[in-house]
Formats: sequence, C-alpha cells, structure tokens
Amino acid sequence: MQHNRRKFLSKAALALAATGASAALLPASAADAPANNLFVHHVYFWLKNKDSKEDKAKLLEGLQALSKVKTIKMFHIGQPADTNRDVIDRSYALSWLLMFDNKVAQESYQVDPIHLDFIKAYSHLWERVVVYDSVDA
Amino acid sequence: MQHNRRKFLSKAALALAATGASAALLPASAADAPANNLFVHHVYFWLKNKDSKEDKAKLLEGLQALSKVKTIKMFHIGQPADTNRDVIDRSYALSWLLMFDNKVAQESYQVDPIHLDFIKAYSHLWERVVVYDSVDA
Repeated sequence: MQHNRRKFLSKAALALAATGASAALLPASAADAPANNLFVHHVYFWLKNKDSKEDKAKLLEGLQALSKVKTIKMFHIGQPADTNRDVIDRSYALSWLLMFDNKVAQESYQVDPIHLDFIKAYSHLWERVVVYDSVDA
Repeated sequence: MQHNRRKFLSKAALALAATGASAALLPASAADAPANNLFVHHVYFWLKNKDSKEDKAKLLEGLQALSKVKTIKMFHIGQPADTNRDVIDRSYALSWLLMFDNKVAQESYQVDPIHLDFIKAYSHLWERVVVYDSVDA
C-alpha cells in the first residue's frame, strides 16, 4: 500500500543524493509528485459565532492538539484564501485536511481518545461541518 | 516560503541517513509532518450524467492530463470513500486536490494553457463544481 508513496519519496532522496542540496528534496513538478494510495479526509468548519476571532482561535488551538493523533500522515489547517470566484466557497472558518495511509488509519483516528476529547471540548463552537472523504480514483 | 517544507523534508532525509531504510523517509507521525506555507486548492465535481461510468472515466483522464501543469506541487485525484456519516458529503463524482507553494503558483495554474484546454475539453461533463481554496490558518 505504501509502495507508490515510498517510490515518490525515494525519488526525492535520489535527487538529494545527486545534488546535495536540501531544496532538491522537493520534486521538480507534480509529474513527480502524485499522491497515491491515500485516504484524504477534508473537513470544513462553520462557526456559530461567524465573526468571532476568539472562537476561530480556540478551534485552531483544538485542531493543533488534534494533529497529534499518531495515524495522521499529513495535516494542513487552512482558512479561506483571498481568491474569489463564483465556484469558490469561502464561507467556512477553518479547513482541516488530513491524509492517512488507508481506511483503517482513518477509522483509528475517528475513535482516538485525542479525537474524542477534541469533539467534547470544541464542538460547541461550530454550527456546521462538512466532510469529504476521498480515496484514489 | 519553502522554509518549513524543507525543514520537514530534511527531517525525513535525516531519518533515512540514520536507518538506511526507505520506509524511514516517511515521518513517524503527523507531529513530524505539518504541511505549512501551502496553498490548498480542493475541487469537487458533480457530473451531469450522475451514474455514467464513461463520463467519470473521461473526466479522470482529463484530470490526469491536467496534473502535468508545472506549478502543481502535489495532486490527488479522489472519489468518495465508503465512509458514510451524516456530516459526510459523498455525492460528488471526483475530487481534485492540489497543493501549490503559494498564491502566485495557483494563479499561474489557473491560466496555464493545459488548464484552459482542460476546461474547454471537459467542462461539458460536469453539472456543478465546488472549490475550496485554503491557506495556512
């Protein structure tokens, strides 16, 4: 399952060996960086107090603590960029992007005590949550 | 801008040096893998012909071609996982997750000839597109 991911990262390591430069660890382009064999879990949060910077900061703090769950492979805590076109939804307060190695790792995250504590401590802050779970097409 | 990302990858390289095992290229946990300084562009597509496997395959083919745009740092083409809870939206056909180094790279992607060709050749397939653009919170 991790095979392709290893292959990608091995490419990066080879590039490092070849040049000795840390920047070379990054693939030159996406052609070298397909993310395969992933479980992508993307959550968007809308706050009850839409304009409360304080509540947003609290939720951010909660997500930072949540990121410690061991089965998470990569995470990104986001907020709307300043792009603005018809198709763009920029009404959410925070975006919580997670990558897992597989479905089992995601299931483990759902029941992880850190995740359960997060829900207990922070769910009063949000009005709406939308989740998109995606696996390789 | 790439500083933190480099730092993460350097950690991975150090882990490799320490163990000599390719698996060590992967961070042990998310604590080692925050994705910082990113522009995350996540697009969800709903097809006009909802149940057409043929149209879904066509769009997938289009996205694979689109992934060649040079400014894309990482991409993942997804479809709904088999998770199913109230908060999960699993009605879309395909998910198109992109990571860019910054806003400028994303803007460049929007006007890249490969992207314009993609829209011309494939937009007749979808009924609805929702885009979430996120930057570090």
